[in-house]
Amino acid sequence: MSEVHAARRAALRAHCSPGDGTALLISRPANLRYLVGAVPAHAALLLTPGGEDVLVGGAVAALRGTPDDALRLLAVDGDTDPAATAAVLAARDGAASLAVEEHHLTVARYRAVRAAGGGLPLGDLARAVEQRRLVKDEAEIAALRTAAEITDRALGELLESILVGRTERHLALELERRLVDHGADGAAFPTSVATGANSGSAGHRPTDRRVEEGDFLTVRLGARYRGYRCRIGRTFVIGSRPADWQIELYELVFAAQRAARETLAPGTECREVDRAARAVLDGAGHADALGPLTGEGVGLEMGEDPRLAPAAMGRLGVRVPVTVEPGVHLPGRGGVRIDDTLVVRPVADGGPELLTITTKELLAL
Amino acid sequence: MSEVHAARRAALRAHCSPGDGTALLISRPANLRYLVGAVPAHAALLLTPGGEDVLVGGAVAALRGTPDDALRLLAVDGDTDPAATAAVLAARDGAASLAVEEHHLTVARYRAVRAAGGGLPLGDLARAVEQRRLVKDEAEIAALRTAAEITDRALGELLESILVGRTERHLALELERRLVDHGADGAAFPTSVATGANSGSAGHRPTDRRVEEGDFLTVRLGARYRGYRCRIGRTFVIGSRPADWQIELYELVFAAQRAARETLAPGTECREVDRAARAVLDGAGHADALGPLTGEGVGLEMGEDPRLAPAAMGRLGVRVPVTVEPGVHLPGRGGVRIDDTLVVRPVADGGPELLTITTKELLAL
Repeated sequence: MSEVHAARRAALRAHCSPGDGTALLISRPANLRYLVGAVPAHAALLLTPGGEDVLVGGAVAALRGTPDDALRLLAVDGDTDPAATAAVLAARDGAASLAVEEHHLTVARYRAVRAAGGGLPLGDLARAVEQRRLVKDEAEIAALRTAAEITDRALGELLESILVGRTERHLALELERRLVDHGADGAAFPTSVATGANSGSAGHRPTDRRVEEGDFLTVRLGARYRGYRCRIGRTFVIGSRPADWQIELYELVFAAQRAARETLAPGTECREVDRAARAVLDGAGHADALGPLTGEGVGLEMGEDPRLAPAAMGRLGVRVPVTVEPGVHLPGRGGVRIDDTLVVRPVADGGPELLTITTKELLAL
Repeated sequence: MSEVHAARRAALRAHCSPGDGTALLISRPANLRYLVGAVPAHAALLLTPGGEDVLVGGAVAALRGTPDDALRLLAVDGDTDPAATAAVLAARDGAASLAVEEHHLTVARYRAVRAAGGGLPLGDLARAVEQRRLVKDEAEIAALRTAAEITDRALGELLESILVGRTERHLALELERRLVDHGADGAAFPTSVATGANSGSAGHRPTDRRVEEGDFLTVRLGARYRGYRCRIGRTFVIGSRPADWQIELYELVFAAQRAARETLAPGTECREVDRAARAVLDGAGHADALGPLTGEGVGLEMGEDPRLAPAAMGRLGVRVPVTVEPGVHLPGRGGVRIDDTLVVRPVADGGPELLTITTKELLAL
């Protein structure tokens, strides 16, 4: 992996520091992970115009052996801001300016960086690293694929166990344990288990409510594997057979989710994906049930670009992993969510690659 | 609780906006929780010089009923920065300036706040809210006490189970499950379980190593209860009896921890607590084994003020909860950590109140 990280840094430098003497200072943890690999807490990366890459941090010594040869490690004590130390280095190396991540550095840290840099002018690197993270390479997609396999397996095992009488909290904890059992670093985001009137609610945090006969049960989880995160969401019915309203609502959300999935192709406008799901739900009178997003990019973080939303700009590209996650929640009754993680692929390569392969039939458990 | 939060806001306003027209903008989540109670994601609190308290946020509607009457709720859509909206309100209300948390706001958000405020001058609220959080009231200490009880119980149950052959990861997950079982909101920080050569290492993340006969086993965990967090750390020996070097090292760390605990009193210099532990370890030739801190404040966050460290400034006050957590790790062999959470109390009230009461005898399990 080490050449991969060195190549990413070289590409970033070529893009953001094209021979004008700009040094780049990266501090946002997910961006550091992308550019360096494993990242210690409290670190900053400096890319000098002269071509030197320096990782400054409180515990970089622990990284020895992990990063690539092209990276110099510089340890600082715990009270020193690594970003400020990086500014000192940039000034010493004769950089003409220093671009920092203004969307991540706090005002207080920014002032410390400015003071440490002497007269070195500061610029904004903005979301340049995030933009480079949008399209994944095949190694990143392989990590996402493994994350999805782990997630499918954890969910599959849960479905084989007895659910009635168990609390949302317990089911969520068991799912997270199973993720780790199967090799995940941990959960990609807090696992949501929602029963009865809670089901289908987007941001539901597990409670002590127990699963009952006749409930809808919505489960949303994802594994984190080598830093990469995915999401699956499924809704089940507890008992021998679903009620008519449950079948109807399930089929509606399934149709909306399928409609959105079917739009996923290189060149599709992001808002077009959202519109496809929304149109199905609107047609059935559930215009307000959908939240602000139908899906979002995933990778080293949940909620990366692109956003699949009504006002989203831009088009999908090849090898962009996204979630498609519409849902409807009827207050007091419950609802349905169906979430998948897919990778945008051209038709020639078989179209969108579905990573989360657990069945989307309405199972009665 | 609602009067408590209103009173905290009034005290903050009296302290930081003494009739000079300064509006206060609080954005740091733990500070919002302190001043408002439950806090939705993506929110900001504005205290106007005229005496109005406004909570601005994306999901403040969900708070209806929770906060106190003295708080106005203002919903904004998900793409709007609540801090920028608060700046608009402050300017409209005729504030002379707006103090923001420069240690929390990013440069990008700061620019958005400045633009939204028109010509409104911005100042720095700095860590004014954190300073007010240092000394806890008895309701906060009661929450910490419950957190510690839950933590002791989860640890006690683990000690009754069979440990040999189980992995660090599994033990950590089981402890976190037990914390939630006993009523915790969740873990206060990632639970650390370290066996064999990993034991005693401060930042150890659980691995797939299994517990073996003869191991030292170090466990560090804490519950989060109503937002309040504590820490306990204990080291055990696996097997019928400890080796001589294990007894010796344990007694040393225990002596260092006790020496530090015994200094805890109102008026003690923070660095004096650290020095007491360090002196014991230095005397035995383990000067380098101790990390930068012997302990730290706890409350709504881990790692609050005060820091118990060699260069720490300031003195302990009554009703300040701190951890005391020295440790020694011998590379390749393992080591010992013993962590407690205590509240500083005057001698007349019985001296320091030990919240984490699990025995510190060296147990052979």
